[in-house]
Order: sequence, then structure tokens, then C-alpha cells
Amino acid sequence: MVQENWRIYLSGEIHSDWREHIINGCSAKGLPVDIVTPITNHEASDDCGVEILGHENDEFWKDHKGAQVNAIRTRTLIEKSDVVVVKFGDKFRQWNAAFDAGFCAAKGKPYITLHDEDIIHALKEVDAAAMAWAKTPGQVVEILKYVTLA
Amino acid sequence: MVQENWRIYLSGEIHSDWREHIINGCSAKGLPVDIVTPITNHEASDDCGVEILGHENDEFWKDHKGAQVNAIRTRTLIEKSDVVVVKFGDKFRQWNAAFDAGFCAAKGKPYITLHDEDIIHALKEVDAAAMAWAKTPGQVVEILKYVTLA
Amino acid sequence: MVQENWRIYLSGEIHSDWREHIINGCSAKGLPVDIVTPITNHEASDDCGVEILGHENDEFWKDHKGAQVNAIRTRTLIEKSDVVVVKFGDKFRQWNAAFDAGFCAAKGKPYITLHDEDIIHALKEVDAAAMAWAKTPGQVVEILKYVTLA
Amino acid sequence: MVQENWRIYLSGEIHSDWREHIINGCSAKGLPVDIVTPITNHEASDDCGVEILGHENDEFWKDHKGAQVNAIRTRTLIEKSDVVVVKFGDKFRQWNAAFDAGFCAAKGKPYITLHDEDIIHALKEVDAAAMAWAKTPGQVVEILKYVTLA
Amino acid sequence: MVQENWRIYLSGEIHSDWREHIINGCSAKGLPVDIVTPITNHEASDDCGVEILGHENDEFWKDHKGAQVNAIRTRTLIEKSDVVVVKFGDKFRQWNAAFDAGFCAAKGKPYITLHDEDIIHALKEVDAAAMAWAKTPGQVVEILKYVTLA
Amino acid sequence: MVQENWRIYLSGEIHSDWREHIINGCSAKGLPVDIVTPITNHEASDDCGVEILGHENDEFWKDHKGAQVNAIRTRTLIEKSDVVVVKFGDKFRQWNAAFDAGFCAAKGKPYITLHDEDIIHALKEVDAAAMAWAKTPGQVVEILKYVTLA
Amino acid sequence: MVQENWRIYLSGEIHSDWREHIINGCSAKGLPVDIVTPITNHEASDDCGVEILGHENDEFWKDHKGAQVNAIRTRTLIEKSDVVVVKFGDKFRQWNAAFDAGFCAAKGKPYITLHDEDIIHALKEVDAAAMAWAKTPGQVVEILKYVTLA
Amino acid sequence: MVQENWRIYLSGEIHSDWREHIINGCSAKGLPVDIVTPITNHEASDDCGVEILGHENDEFWKDHKGAQVNAIRTRTLIEKSDVVVVKFGDKFRQWNAAFDAGFCAAKGKPYITLHDEDIIHALKEVDAAAMAWAKTPGQVVEILKYVTLA
Repeated sequence: MVQENWRIYLSGEIHSDWREHIINGCSAKGLPVDIVTPITNHEASDDCGVEILGHENDEFWKDHKGAQVNAIRTRTLIEKSDVVVVKFGDKFRQWNAAFDAGFCAAKGKPYITLHDEDIIHALKEVDAAAMAWAKTPGQVVEILKYVTLA
Repeated sequence: MVQENWRIYLSGEIHSDWREHIINGCSAKGLPVDIVTPITNHEASDDCGVEILGHENDEFWKDHKGAQVNAIRTRTLIEKSDVVVVKFGDKFRQWNAAFDAGFCAAKGKPYITLHDEDIIHALKEVDAAAMAWAKTPGQVVEILKYVTLA
Repeated sequence: MVQENWRIYLSGEIHSDWREHIINGCSAKGLPVDIVTPITNHEASDDCGVEILGHENDEFWKDHKGAQVNAIRTRTLIEKSDVVVVKFGDKFRQWNAAFDAGFCAAKGKPYITLHDEDIIHALKEVDAAAMAWAKTPGQVVEILKYVTLA
Repeated sequence: MVQENWRIYLSGEIHSDWREHIINGCSAKGLPVDIVTPITNHEASDDCGVEILGHENDEFWKDHKGAQVNAIRTRTLIEKSDVVVVKFGDKFRQWNAAFDAGFCAAKGKPYITLHDEDIIHALKEVDAAAMAWAKTPGQVVEILKYVTLA
Repeated sequence: MVQENWRIYLSGEIHSDWREHIINGCSAKGLPVDIVTPITNHEASDDCGVEILGHENDEFWKDHKGAQVNAIRTRTLIEKSDVVVVKFGDKFRQWNAAFDAGFCAAKGKPYITLHDEDIIHALKEVDAAAMAWAKTPGQVVEILKYVTLA
Repeated sequence: MVQENWRIYLSGEIHSDWREHIINGCSAKGLPVDIVTPITNHEASDDCGVEILGHENDEFWKDHKGAQVNAIRTRTLIEKSDVVVVKFGDKFRQWNAAFDAGFCAAKGKPYITLHDEDIIHALKEVDAAAMAWAKTPGQVVEILKYVTLA
Repeated sequence: MVQENWRIYLSGEIHSDWREHIINGCSAKGLPVDIVTPITNHEASDDCGVEILGHENDEFWKDHKGAQVNAIRTRTLIEKSDVVVVKFGDKFRQWNAAFDAGFCAAKGKPYITLHDEDIIHALKEVDAAAMAWAKTPGQVVEILKYVTLA
Repeated sequence: MVQENWRIYLSGEIHSDWREHIINGCSAKGLPVDIVTPITNHEASDDCGVEILGHENDEFWKDHKGAQVNAIRTRTLIEKSDVVVVKFGDKFRQWNAAFDAGFCAAKGKPYITLHDEDIIHALKEVDAAAMAWAKTPGQVVEILKYVTLA
């Protein structure tokens, strides 16, 4: 039984090291996964639009240009992924993470949410369309191990 | 030139009266629109799952049942709408609103965001995929007036 | 807020009167729903193929012809419905009901399962993709009342 | 004429050794196929949800969590397969197998049913949408040999 | 149970009166169907391209222009129909009828073939993807009566 | 044979009166068509973004806002139309008209081009994906008359 | 500029050696193409259903079983191909070739027809949806050379 | 983190060397991209139809044949690409470039426009649906570097 690698996209929170936990966990277990992510350098992500395409006086258009350049990457990688993991935390609004979850739901692409118990009520619509809710990166790794089993 | 009514879905914030402003504004101008909404009674929306389908001890599953019952309505109405308006405010997380926006983006359904200027950075991915950002319900009505012009 | 009727398809079990309960319940509450069903006359459903298109010596082909004629109706009505209700009981195999549920899941069409508690384990994959699990026709009516609320 | 391998998914019955017959048959004939399956360890499949994501008091939610984790694997592999084989037997309800068949039918993905003659009437809707009905694993191997011929 | 009319498209053979048999049969039984057809005036159908858009010296381009103008009608009506009936006869090649059948198969739209027994071998691929094979217009009417039953 | 009206969208050139010719021609012949158009008031179309949503210093963003507001109308009406007519002239670049044609081609929606003979080379890719090339509004009316014939 | 091979499917006529001409022509020119075909052994193609799955007394069902087994191959390979070539000749009805063309048209998959000039009128609908009409296998090879040019 | 190459399609203007700038720029930076293009030999592109498939007296049909042969290549490569770059210049009408942009918009495929500032008004609809507007090939390379970052 030959099997190509699974492609996993890690969406959401960028101010903690949860991606490393998942990447290292998958690597330690030798899982057949290719993991891709958005650009997680906060400053680069915020500035890429104006850095590359020119200054904007208006903050809205600065954000607009940056968000669209980032979207070239994120949309493409999400569409090409088999499973998406969406991490929510207690800092920032993270509307982009919920946006990615809605995008996946509409495309019929399975996603796993990753967040603490204290925000389950606020995330109820996002969790309701997910295939699993994990509380730790380790649980995500265990799910990936289980579903990718040769 | 005969023209059927446009169907408009109003997503997001439920603790302010922005929907009434839009509904009344469209009505006052005689716009050819049918406006639909999620259930905006906060308590009914939270409790519908357990009210109808039975008690849950665990808050997560209570929310899960409720969110799924609500989703029967929201997904169906969003899919049947021509334009979606998504309102964000400064209270609550409103991840469901961002989820709806992501859902629309994936379906190629045009949506308009409605929010104040102070949250443009947090909403940059959501705004970047929108067809317009309005600051007031009145601007939404003006857009609807313009696009539905016979 | 004008709203067109919701189309509800009632799939599954045909040897009990659960459809009448739902139809009467919706009617009694004046819900804005149009309810459609497969042909529920068991004998007509089994024989339609050979009755209309000619005798078959082989039971397999008799069933094949009948199942395909019925599928013209069932697929068309399911695709045109907003919500599907799938009823499972303790008699017969009802693989066609599970087939309809899988069809809905693939199309992203919301469905509600209706069955007793004693078969939840056997139905876990079917329930997992449903938007709600109801134990009684009355609960289905309550869900329809809630989601179609003007 | 270069040709990439065909991907075959084997759905349904897990308490008999039919998958080994097909895998060994394809291997013995050197067919250009990659065969994938759901997790066929019954206990692991039932418990994966609570094992990985935490205990549930309620059997329904235990099943729900498990079925959704399994669905991450099964949906993904079905969508990536070229042909699906669905096996039905005389034990258990196997609603999940019929669910997979309905899923394939909706996606336009060809599937072959595998079952004895005594259940053809109960399976008539499932067989009617199939591309072939095989009675033995050997017949499935012969079909795969025929259709994948270089 | 309110039910909108079913839309039926009658494709294929234009040199016999089979359409009238079906239209009259449906009318006599009061079936809830709206029946649509291609332009069945052979000469008008052949000449519409050059009649409207200008003379062509080359027969290929005359046919090309005509076939495309007709396709505006046929594709649109087929896509909007619930069921397509495709009639094959012993005269002419009727490749357009087989083309319509292939089009329906790809779209997942149910179609019924209508033809005599002597051409079943030549039509085996077309029949294999059909939901029913009828030998007479009367059988088609009976199928439509059965599937549209309120 | 009942038949609902055909929806026709008239895209492209706004500085000549070709739309009136088509609308009047269809009306004079009593064709069963509902004709819809983009906003054809050039100034309103250019300014709608900044008029409704606020001033922009940068011409690019002024155009961006306006084009997106207009797109809410144009995309929605194109998607809901059965046939699109795209008019090209010798003035202006009319890239938006070619954009609409490409959009239709990707959606499989039939469109008719309307333009003089002197620009056929420049329009060859656009014409190649069209169902017809008309030189006059009168020819468009004749096509619509032919394809909508009851 | 790296480029993966193009996949070409050769549909239609099986009683002449046109496929060999195209395969050899592509090979001689070193084109970056992978060519796939239906089973072109006429007898094997006719008998595969009953050979593998058991005897049928009725010719219709013999053909039905065979056509469906073949369809597992043909549909899958057509869907995976970039370009389809459909050959029509003066012998047999070749409704399956026209069926494949209609299937491609509905999927938006480009196809080239290959046939003599004497049947252009009968093939006008099939040609009208094609990207090219070739009269010789050599022309098909030239088209493939042109479009796959690195 | 393994990552397959990104496929980039370069559409539009063929009378300047902008493609070489992008190809060389990507190569110099070692970006993980495979770049594909339409046939950019103007004469070959104009004549391919009649060169391969035979002379046409009428310029319209000469263009038609050529445009369709080219479309086999361009549609296929656009559909297989992850990102499309569309270049507009001040010479020629370049309706084909706008057509490609509309095609991408309808497919949800991200595209970047490349053009000078003096044509922003004429391109406002095309730019409004783009993910970025670049003024130089170097900016396109920078975007590709950013979005394909491992």
C-alpha cells in the first residue's frame, strides 16, 4: 500500500510556538505529512504589501495590500492541503483564523480547531463545523498519526 | 426590464440595532430587496439545541448542538442570498461573523463588511476579500440602492 | 422581510407514520415549508421498474430498474431541498437512507437524523455528518419551526 | 504510454478478510494500483476519539468524536481515490458503507459493490448507482485488472 | 405538500412525432410538468446561423454558426431541466442526441433514453449512464407520472 | 409548454445606445426576456465608491472602491443570467467587457459578442469562446427571438 | 521552465489504426505527452461485463454490465486528461464517441474532433463545442506539438 | 517542510521582454516556481490554426481556428497554475489579457496585474479582482519570493 504524504496547513495564532510543537511531534513520529504555514513573521506579514508594492498613506490600504499578498499564499496552500489546523488563543481578535475556518467549511475541507476550554462558547460556530477540537498540539499530532496510518 | 428582488443576508453582531437601520432604510427607499437574518434573540440562539433536542451536562456539547441547529438556518440563507453584510463591533469575539465571511469568500459570494475604523487592522484579511467596507448602516443602504437600481 | 418557503425532504423508513407526524406538525404550526418525499407505497416503489418498463426474470435487474426510476424522483427532490430529514428504524436494513445521508454530506446539504437511542453506535458515521439528531418527529418539527422563523 | 497508478479505496465490512484478498490479488497480478483503506482495527476505530481527545460520559458524544476523527481519514482518501469498492455483509448494519456509497454517487466517483446475492433487494438503491456488483473479491481484482490495463 | 412543476427536456430525433405523444400524454394525465424542446423545425435549425448572422461559403462554418446558435437554446434548457429524455431512431446519425446524453451524465442530470430494441448494442454506453430505457413515448409518460406524483 | 422568461445581461460599451436598440427590439417582438444591465451612467459608475464610502486621495483606490461596488451588481446579474451579450466598440479600451467575457467562459455561460468587423483580429480570443458574433443589435434580437421561441 | 507531461485521451473509433498514428507521431517528435485510451480490443470490450461478473441471458443487461465496467476506465481517464481527441468514422454509429464529446463539453475539458469532411453536417453540434476539427492523425499530432511546446 | 513547486502562468503582452525579466528574476533567486506561458511567437500564434488545419479565405475563421488552438494551451495551463500574472501595456487592445483575468476571477484563481500607472482607470475592473497590482516585473518576482517562501 503506497501512500503519498498528507498536506497539513497550520492556520491562526502566530505569537506562540504551537507550530513548532506540531512540526516536531510529526517529525519525531515519522508521520507521512508535509506541513505548510502562512508567513508567521508578524512584521513581514504586516508590511509585505507596502514593502513590495509601494508606500500607502492610508492604514486601510496598507493593510489591504498586505492582506491580499498574504492571501495569494494562504488561499493556495489551504486549497492544496488535506487537513487544516486552526489555532485560537486568548490574545488578539484572530478573525483571520475564523475566516480560514469558514473558508474550509465552504470547501468541504476537514479542519481541526486547537484552543483552550475557556473560549468554547465564543468559538461554537467554528467548532461545530470542525472535525475535531484539540486542546494541545500533542493531541493534533495524535490525530494526524491516527488518520495517516499506513 | 423586470427584476426579481435581491436577497440580502445580515450576518454578525446581535447586541446593537444595526439590522433595523438597514431594514428600515431599505424600506424607506423602496429597494427591491428581501432581507434575511440569523436568529438574533441571543438566548434563543444559545439554547435552541438543548431546548429542542435535550439537556447536555457538558457546555461544549450544549454549544455544539445549538450551533449546528443555527447553522441549518444560517448556511441555507447565506447560500440563497445575493449579497451578505457582515457587521463587526468592539464587543465579543464575533468569530462567527468572520467564519461567515470566509464561507462567502470560498463560495464567491459578494459580501460587505460593516465596522468602525478602529478595528481595520484586526479585520484586514476579512476586509481584503470583501467587495466594500462600510462604516455605517446608511452606507450599506446606499450600496444596496446603487447595485439594485432597476 | 419576505421569505420563500423552505423545501424539506423526508428520507428513509416507510413502514411507520413518522412523515404524517411531521407534515401535520408543520401544518398545525403554519410553518413556511413545502414537504416532499420519495414514493412511500412500498409495493409501487418495488414494482415501478417492471410495471412501466417491462418484466425481468432476474430479481437483480427488476430491483435495478425500479431503483433507478425511483432515483429520478429522489435525487431530484433531494437536490432541490433545503433540509433533508433521514429516519432510521429497527426494521429492515435501510441502506437507502444511509445512502441518502452520504449523498447530502457530499453535496453540503444539511440533514437531520431521526432515530431511537438504541442504534446510535451503528449510526455514528451518519450522525457525525448530520446537523442534528432528533429522537421524535416532534423534535424535527421544533427544529424546522426554529430555523424557518421569519 | 506512461500511466500513473490507480488509487483504490476499500470501504465497508471490517470483520472479514476481503481486503487482504483484494490486496494480495492485485499484488499477485502486478496491477498498477495503490490501495487505501479506513482504519480496520475495530477497537481503535471506536475509541480513537476519546483516546486522543478525552473521555466522554455520553456514548453518543464518544461515538461522535470517534466518527469525526475517522472521517478526516475516510473522506480525504475517498476524494483522492479513482475507484471505491464497498463491501456489504450479513452482519451488522453497515450504514457507514452505504453512506460512503451515497457520498461517491454525489461526487460522481465510480464505485463497485461487493456482496452476496441474498441482500440484493436491500441494497437495490446502492447497487443502482454503482458501476458494478461483484460477488467475490476475485471479481473485483478482475475488474481492476481490466480497467487499469496499460 | 405544495410542489413546483418538473421541467422536462426532450432531446434527439426530430423527424417523428414522439414529442407530441409525450406532451399530449402528460397533458391528458394532468402531470405537473413543463416540457421544453430544441427547435424542431429541421430547416430553421440548419439555417438559423446564416439566416441571422450572414452567409457562409463554407458548409463547415455554416453548420458551425447554426450549431452554436442552437446550443444557446439547448444548453440553457438542458441545464434548467430536471429530467431529460433522449430519443434515438434508425435514421440519421443523431450524434447530437448522444452528445446531449454525455452532457447530462457529466452534470449528474438524470436522463431517460427512448429507442427500439434493435439498437441497444450501439447505444450501450448511452444507456448505461441513463436512469431508464423506454421503448415507447407512453412508457416515458408513465415514468414521468410516477416520479412527479404529489 | 409553459416557459419562464430568459434573463439577458448586456455587458460592455456604455457610450452608445445599443442597449436601447436591443431592449426595444425585444419589446417590439414580445420576446419572453428580462433584460438587465450594469449601471450605464458613466459618472455614477465612476464615482459610486467615493460617493457612498468616502473620498480617496489616490486615484487607484478611488477606482478600486468604485469597481468593487459595481462588481456586486455585475457579477450577481451575470451569474443569474441565461445569456450575456458583450458589446465592443472602437473607443476606449473596454477591458471590463473582455473581463466579463472571460468570466462567462469560465462559468460555461453562453455569451454573444457584438462588434464591427474591423476589430475581429483583436477580439479573436474573445470571439472564439462566444456562441455567436453579431454585427448589429438587430442580429442579437433575432438570435434571442430564435432561441427563446416557445 | 519545467513542465509535466500532458495527458491525452483518444476516444472513439476502434476498427482503424488512427491511435497508432498519433502515438507514433508524438513519439517520433518527442512530445511531452502521456497517451491513454479506452480498451480497444472490441471483443474484450463487449464481453468484459459477463466474462468477469457472470453470464446474462438478456443482451441488454450483458451490454449494460460491459458498458459500466468500461465506463470505470473511460470516465476516470477522461477526467484526468488535459485534452481529448474524438475520432468519428463512416462505420458504426459511434454514439459512445459523441457521448464522450458531450461529457467533455459539460466538464469544460478541451477536445479535438478527428473525422473526414463528408460527415461534417451530422457532427455539427459535436464540432461546434470542439476546440479544433482535424482531418488526419497527423494534424492532431501537429496540434499537440504546438500546444505542448515548452 | 517539503514543498512542491508553485506553477506560475504569465499572460498578456507579447511584444516586450517582461517574461524574461520574471523568469530570470525567479531563477536568480532560486524560487521554487515552474513558469509557463502562452505561445509568445506572434506570427506562430496568429497562424497556427491555418498552418495546421488548412487555409481559410475568411479572416474571421482564420482567427477563430488559431484562437481555439491557442486556447487548448492557455486554458489548460491557466487551470493548472497556482498564480497568474497578467501584463497590460499601452500598445494593442489586449482584450485576451483581460479575458484571462476574467477567467481567473470566475475560477477563484489568484492573479496579479502588471502595468503602468497611466492605465489604472481603464483597468479598474480588472485590478479590482486581482490580488495585487505590480508596476514592474521586479515587483512580481518579489511577490513570488514572498508567497513561496519555504
